[in-house]
Amino acid sequence: MKYRITLAYDGADYFGWQTQPGQPTIQAVLNAALERFEGGPVTTHAAGRTDAGVHAEGQIVSFNLSREWDGVDMRRALNGNLPQDIRVLDAAPADEGFHARFDAKSKTYRYQIYLAEVMNPFLIRYAWQHPYPLDVARLAEESRAFVGAHDFTAFTVADCDTKTFTRTIMDVVVEREGDLLKLFFTGDGFLRYQVRTMVATLVESNRGRLRVGTISELIESKDRSLAGAHAPARGLTLMKVGY
Amino acid sequence: MKYRITLAYDGADYFGWQTQPGQPTIQAVLNAALERFEGGPVTTHAAGRTDAGVHAEGQIVSFNLSREWDGVDMRRALNGNLPQDIRVLDAAPADEGFHARFDAKSKTYRYQIYLAEVMNPFLIRYAWQHPYPLDVARLAEESRAFVGAHDFTAFTVADCDTKTFTRTIMDVVVEREGDLLKLFFTGDGFLRYQVRTMVATLVESNRGRLRVGTISELIESKDRSLAGAHAPARGLTLMKVGY
Repeated sequence: MKYRITLAYDGADYFGWQTQPGQPTIQAVLNAALERFEGGPVTTHAAGRTDAGVHAEGQIVSFNLSREWDGVDMRRALNGNLPQDIRVLDAAPADEGFHARFDAKSKTYRYQIYLAEVMNPFLIRYAWQHPYPLDVARLAEESRAFVGAHDFTAFTVADCDTKTFTRTIMDVVVEREGDLLKLFFTGDGFLRYQVRTMVATLVESNRGRLRVGTISELIESKDRSLAGAHAPARGLTLMKVGY
Repeated sequence: MKYRITLAYDGADYFGWQTQPGQPTIQAVLNAALERFEGGPVTTHAAGRTDAGVHAEGQIVSFNLSREWDGVDMRRALNGNLPQDIRVLDAAPADEGFHARFDAKSKTYRYQIYLAEVMNPFLIRYAWQHPYPLDVARLAEESRAFVGAHDFTAFTVADCDTKTFTRTIMDVVVEREGDLLKLFFTGDGFLRYQVRTMVATLVESNRGRLRVGTISELIESKDRSLAGAHAPARGLTLMKVGY
């Protein structure tokens, strides 16, 4: 039987989604709980393989179990066997062919920047502090350069085991709530570090530190050495996956 | 020279404001930083002596230092010497006679209740989960019983070293944001555990478990055994002190 669950997690204390020997990861903890029910190995696939320190409000995971489970029972049983910082929001049987990653049509990530000289102690784990002024209207305008289908080679890492570097960004939304700036990126997929590199590049450009004329030129350059370093993991959250 | 600072802190990892031998407290950490600058002992007074696990967004603290400090310099120096979960939002010289606790005219506390069967992993440290339905309109209505000058003996602890149990509550505001219920209590002062006992009592009443007819009768009873247990510290935050 195939199942699909929606996970929320505070990633601050984990080395990302993917199992790594000797490190606490979301996948390792989830698999351990599932294998307790299954009595044998379980293979899980997440829509987004979030990096160390990255959070999720709407991660989707698929897996097979031999036993038939009611969704509500599975949610309760899993939450009773997972640490408090990982919660199953929803669980349900899925079509046999369902694959959380391969079937995903879109993903929305949120990146939070805290714009004040003194950091908010409640956001240490959830936002990147930027203590200098930013022109938010200009940042929102420049973020439009990412929308569309582009080769994002300049915004990922060299050792990325991906076949194509072209991704389509459907939308970028910038919201400000007091000192907290929220950037929402929706795309058909993202390369490793892509969102965090786009965020760092927007901030560098805002401070007049872009190494080429415009963000569009930077995209076209496909030159990894020109983009900004990637912004810290703590500001990033996988919000939603569309199928 | 007298100084006044505004503090925000995530209290989850501290045993409250007040110095206690062998325990990490906000006061002990702040005093250690101040004494580094002063080169000798410093006495600090906080507007609200928050309990273990309670947070602050606008705690006010007063103290004397022998040296003259510029407010911005003091803020920077203190933030450079405090852990990340304690931040000085503002620092300024104050009138010689200023005392953060004795001069306080009002305090506003916020209590957060998370109303969903599955807890939000980002609110573990900041809200009390209540997984059963609550009638929020009725809770807001019943909370009005606390407004005014009342003897709150029924809502504090027996060993409270206070002279009078009468406190005036100026306002109670109930707001709901999705699954998060926020209760704001503004009063001229609060007894130990008073806010958390009022919150637990409102929840018990909502679930039909009040041991007397109404909250007003419970207040009048002055009977500590009739009120609810106090709600957990993690939901409580000192928001603002008025002078």
